[in-house]
Amino acid sequence: MEGVDHLAFERNKAQFDVDEMKIVWAGSREDFELSDRISRLVASDPVFRKDDRAALGRKELFKNTLRKAAHAWKRVIELRLSEPEAYKLRAFVDQPAFTDLHWGMFVPAIQGQGTDEQQQKWLPLAYRMQIIGCYAQTELGHGSNVQGLETTATFDPKTDEFVIHSPTLTSSKWWPGGLGKVSTHAVVYARLIIDGQDYGVHGFIVQLRSLDDHLPLPGITIGDIGMKFGNAAYNTMDNGVLTFDHVRIPRNQMLMRVSQVTREGKYVHSNVPRQLVYGTMVNVRQKIVADASVALSRAVCIATRYSAVRRQFGSHNGGLETQVIDYKTQQSRLFPLLASAYAFRFVGEWLLWLYTDVTERLKAKDFSTLPEAHACTAGLKSLTTTATADGIEECRKLCGGHGYLCSSGLPELFAVYVPACTYEGDNIVLLLQVARHLMKTVSQLSTGNKPVGTTAYMARLEQLLQYHSDVKKAEDWLKPNVVLEAFEARAARMCVACAQNLSKFSNPEEAGFQELAADLVEAAVAHCQLIVVSKFIDKLQQDISGKGVKHILEVLCSVYALSLLHKHLGDFISTGCIDPKQGSLANEQLRNLYSQVRPNAVALVDAYNYTDHYLGSILGRYDGNVYPKLYEETWKDPLNDSIVPDGFKEYIQPLLKQQLRNARL
Amino acid sequence: MEGVDHLAFERNKAQFDVDEMKIVWAGSREDFELSDRISRLVASDPVFRKDDRAALGRKELFKNTLRKAAHAWKRVIELRLSEPEAYKLRAFVDQPAFTDLHWGMFVPAIQGQGTDEQQQKWLPLAYRMQIIGCYAQTELGHGSNVQGLETTATFDPKTDEFVIHSPTLTSSKWWPGGLGKVSTHAVVYARLIIDGQDYGVHGFIVQLRSLDDHLPLPGITIGDIGMKFGNAAYNTMDNGVLTFDHVRIPRNQMLMRVSQVTREGKYVHSNVPRQLVYGTMVNVRQKIVADASVALSRAVCIATRYSAVRRQFGSHNGGLETQVIDYKTQQSRLFPLLASAYAFRFVGEWLLWLYTDVTERLKAKDFSTLPEAHACTAGLKSLTTTATADGIEECRKLCGGHGYLCSSGLPELFAVYVPACTYEGDNIVLLLQVARHLMKTVSQLSTGNKPVGTTAYMARLEQLLQYHSDVKKAEDWLKPNVVLEAFEARAARMCVACAQNLSKFSNPEEAGFQELAADLVEAAVAHCQLIVVSKFIDKLQQDISGKGVKHILEVLCSVYALSLLHKHLGDFISTGCIDPKQGSLANEQLRNLYSQVRPNAVALVDAYNYTDHYLGSILGRYDGNVYPKLYEETWKDPLNDSIVPDGFKEYIQPLLKQQLRNARL
Ligand SMILES: Cc1cc2nc3c(=O)[nH]c(=O)nc-3n(C[C@H](O)[C@H](O)[C@H](O)COP(=O)(O)OP(=O)(O)OC[C@H]3O[C@@H](n4cnc5c(N)ncnc54)[C@H](O)[C@@H]3O)c2cc1C
Ligand SMILES: Cc1cc2nc3c(=O)[nH]c(=O)nc-3n(C[C@H](O)[C@H](O)[C@H](O)COP(=O)(O)OP(=O)(O)OC[C@H]3O[C@@H](n4cnc5c(N)ncnc54)[C@H](O)[C@@H]3O)c2cc1C
Repeated sequence: MEGVDHLAFERNKAQFDVDEMKIVWAGSREDFELSDRISRLVASDPVFRKDDRAALGRKELFKNTLRKAAHAWKRVIELRLSEPEAYKLRAFVDQPAFTDLHWGMFVPAIQGQGTDEQQQKWLPLAYRMQIIGCYAQTELGHGSNVQGLETTATFDPKTDEFVIHSPTLTSSKWWPGGLGKVSTHAVVYARLIIDGQDYGVHGFIVQLRSLDDHLPLPGITIGDIGMKFGNAAYNTMDNGVLTFDHVRIPRNQMLMRVSQVTREGKYVHSNVPRQLVYGTMVNVRQKIVADASVALSRAVCIATRYSAVRRQFGSHNGGLETQVIDYKTQQSRLFPLLASAYAFRFVGEWLLWLYTDVTERLKAKDFSTLPEAHACTAGLKSLTTTATADGIEECRKLCGGHGYLCSSGLPELFAVYVPACTYEGDNIVLLLQVARHLMKTVSQLSTGNKPVGTTAYMARLEQLLQYHSDVKKAEDWLKPNVVLEAFEARAARMCVACAQNLSKFSNPEEAGFQELAADLVEAAVAHCQLIVVSKFIDKLQQDISGKGVKHILEVLCSVYALSLLHKHLGDFISTGCIDPKQGSLANEQLRNLYSQVRPNAVALVDAYNYTDHYLGSILGRYDGNVYPKLYEETWKDPLNDSIVPDGFKEYIQPLLKQQLRNARL
Repeated sequence: MEGVDHLAFERNKAQFDVDEMKIVWAGSREDFELSDRISRLVASDPVFRKDDRAALGRKELFKNTLRKAAHAWKRVIELRLSEPEAYKLRAFVDQPAFTDLHWGMFVPAIQGQGTDEQQQKWLPLAYRMQIIGCYAQTELGHGSNVQGLETTATFDPKTDEFVIHSPTLTSSKWWPGGLGKVSTHAVVYARLIIDGQDYGVHGFIVQLRSLDDHLPLPGITIGDIGMKFGNAAYNTMDNGVLTFDHVRIPRNQMLMRVSQVTREGKYVHSNVPRQLVYGTMVNVRQKIVADASVALSRAVCIATRYSAVRRQFGSHNGGLETQVIDYKTQQSRLFPLLASAYAFRFVGEWLLWLYTDVTERLKAKDFSTLPEAHACTAGLKSLTTTATADGIEECRKLCGGHGYLCSSGLPELFAVYVPACTYEGDNIVLLLQVARHLMKTVSQLSTGNKPVGTTAYMARLEQLLQYHSDVKKAEDWLKPNVVLEAFEARAARMCVACAQNLSKFSNPEEAGFQELAADLVEAAVAHCQLIVVSKFIDKLQQDISGKGVKHILEVLCSVYALSLLHKHLGDFISTGCIDPKQGSLANEQLRNLYSQVRPNAVALVDAYNYTDHYLGSILGRYDGNVYPKLYEETWKDPLNDSIVPDGFKEYIQPLLKQQLRNARL
């Protein structure tokens, strides 16, 4: 049966041009070609095989990662890949490794916070991987509260050095990826102390291990923090623990772009605006949102293809059973996730634009849009990562029992993805930041401060408070402006309700904010959902070519918005934006839309253009040849190396032979 | 610091008698003492240690399970434990093993479906573990649709045997726990074929392996189906694959309690009512609901204690930071789960009563309550397992980064629990069954059929359709009957709305049901939530002694109900049961309730009386001594066996020394 496409009949049903959709998904023809080429390169290289990961013990697993990372770097050099190509290559290798932190955090930290001189010294070493770096911020006792970090960097004017020290157990660095076993250097965040005075948290470049024998330098204790969620997942990464016992570094290893310590021990600010850090944050979070769409789309791809393969019930007269993708419950769980993957893709694309915009404004010393851009990216990071983590697990459940097998790819995808809800800002802490920004925006409306960017709709507050949806029939819900207004009115009213409730407190900003925090988070979610809906709608205003492509994206946009509306019906109705009748019309329209998605479902996930290697899922195989491959693969588990299991003589036979009393177990 | 109770200040805050609450949680003083004694027994036995599991490769992990299972059985024999004691012992060993299926499925299947003669022959062997059995129903191609199983059992009148055969690849048995490497026997479900005629699926006792050398018998191919979700989790279990090539078994190994095949090949029904199987189902699902409360309470216990230990932000003048449990967002995520654990505990207790009731009625040939009991247990299985799986993951997130470490216990708890949403009936398939039953109940109201048991409220349909909540102030929501009526009205109206929408279809039962399936599932959920709320309220009508115990349970009952109401506000408002103002009063009351739970939170999880061994979590340690223990434990990871990692010379040094081109990777 090799070579037969078991999903051909599904692909033939598609009502749009899949090749054109691939371009839309990728962002451009060049991006498509880049991804396509690099993903095939990785898939065809036996060193990058990953189906053997799940059953490995920790040590083998880790060694295997080192091997892949070195091989990847070797290929980058041999093929003289550009930085974007190398980035893609690492992404398609699809195994967390120290290189993620080296390239993703260490290098950018130096680029963003180092002086020109520091950059000239350290970056070439890092670019060639002559040093390997990690990002050591979080401590055993402090993660979210970065200002509470306890590690100290005390200036010693006698020797012109900083003394890096871990004064308490809880000040041990804890979590940094790449730290535990690999990194030679780290950007370490520590409180700057000069002459007994605490200047708050700053970054320092610290060498951790000898470049010769890899042993930790004097005063430095390092280890791996142990196993994490999932079989392979992040266990391929050496998240580490690190303590300092009065470790000395030269003064010029403090990252001094924004503030400096002089030879005399004076703390001075440079003329580089501090706001620069926000630019970096926007960039990092934009990447996280883009990654969310990738992770969710992988899960959706697996669940969609398998739902088309899997048949259960409904056979009449010995005919084929019903494909489970034809069940409305399956559709109502799966298709909103399919739509979400596209929605996150497009909002990610927009965030890339936002980043460019912010960067240009920063150059021109225009900081006016920064707070809004910052809140917006924080909110979108939170929204998309939470939805993606939940969505992957839902996709796993959509595959029934077989989804629980590692060979489905879904357990791995979940376990490796889910910390995105926690790192780079705990999702709830981020939403509280968004809420603060929203309350500020509302309170400043009266002072004539014009809300910008994604909060611009607040300028129409009066109108939105008057709003009542005029939907009369189900199809009315297909109009973008009808949907948009409902989402705007809901978000605005939830914000205003919070603001009003806050104002009843004698201390709204502290006590009030604490007490109403749960409501504030809900308002922030409403605002963020509005952003995603509006950016999807904006995307559809652009030129989109290819037969049927735009139309099916319109369908997905409606699915995304209306499924949210259905899920949060209480918000929409209780704020008086819509009435119950309109709510049930939306639900009716949703069912219609599912029927429109159905024939296109498999083609819509084909448009992601993932190789079978990257998907890493037997259930999600492109050719749909699921059962024979499941059966074939299963024999590869180490337990199947022998027919009679190791331990039979000691632990099973004594049971069967009733010899337990004598047994020494 | 050993021996110091870091949570003593929390325990001192409790406003109720924890020892009395322990009895309430356990069900009775005897049950408490049993659990207490056995859990300590297990905790103090070094063979049962489990903190070393996560980093093991598959083979070591599995051998380790065999060892524990044999040791557990040895202790059962040596200590002459009763069956309830042995059951508890296995539960506290807390590692999925072939024994779960042997005792939990194989033995009950013979008890329930075997004739007296068959029971006399097989049960003594099974009770002594001279044979080890599993439950082989699911196939590669069929799980939910049991009637679609493909394995055949063809009667051969010449030899008086059945020929068990796997005619297709998809008919391979797939998933049975204990099958892959251990079981000597199985109850195999197969289509009974006599003289070319198909009599549907029946159970057969089939020997799989030699009792001497453990090799599969002729015609039988067996293996393990490979790695599953999580580090250890279900990978300690040998879920297996099995195919038959014309394997012969004597006729008397068909389980013949309900129907028989005679020597002549005649298929006859016995006078034992077929409905008996439903009794077994009620029993199995009652256990699953009880297990849900255990799993959720473990997660809640960990998250609650750690939230009291963890401090983040809010330090003024160098004082202690805020305990994260004091944040309202943390409370609004955690306390409803704390309340749910208690709610599920009590509904589980009630299901035990239901099982006794159903069993007695069956004896008296009263089948009248069976369909309702069956639907009710199906629904509660679905509701509690979904909420528990989601709840465990939420508890993990509530622990921030550290929750992602295996040493938090939470990843393991999630991975091992989550298949409960799939096995014993996929949760969505079960809710659709509930919905069918509800639609039938509604449609029969007009014919004067009186609804029974948990659907009895439907008899007041007229009244419930008139209902509008009379809540005027937040405290009104504390009255049990106010809450109950709102839940009844919501469920009734959602059912009636579905029934009305169905009636618009020309074929309501098929096409209509398919099209509206998603709405029907929502109505079924509303009905099941009502059951849990009402059983919690019923529980509080009972005598409950101990200072403050009843009061804090009333608080939890309100938290459970009102947090559901808040989450499903759209249902309540759009059906006109409550208005938006009343919805926000409920929310206001909820915040009040959280403040009441807060000082009692740690004591409420202490009342579960879990040992540190059973919890298996450094974050959830009874003494709250989290950070030193995290630090201490981390060095035990195999990666920390050597300072320089295995692979340094081959894969790290060549990077640093720029020698990659020459390297052979
Ligand atoms: C896989 C992984 C990789 C990582 N990699 C790195 C790395 O390379 N380098 C590095 O430095 N760090 C790293 N981290 C650490 C990560 O950045 C932190 O875990 C993250 O910032 C969350 O902080 P926390 O763990 O302190 O959570 P906590 O803040 O302790 O969160 C616990 C709970 O408290 C709540 N909470 C906290 N503050 C508030 C508040 N003000 N209001 C309401 N609720 C609150 C949270 O919502 C959460 O529910 C990594 C973590 C993980 C899981
Ligand atoms: C850890 C584990 C242990 C197990 N142990 C055993 C064991 O010991 N013995 C044994 O025999 N089996 C066992 N099983 C198998 C288990 O019973 C099945 O996986 C379960 O019954 C679900 O069936 P499925 O896998 O066929 O799911 P499917 O039915 O294929 O489900 C796939 C999707 O289709 C949907 N779907 C299916 N039918 C319908 C419908 N009619 N309407 C709407 N949607 C539908 C489901 O909701 C789901 O989203 C085990 C499974 C697991 C995961």
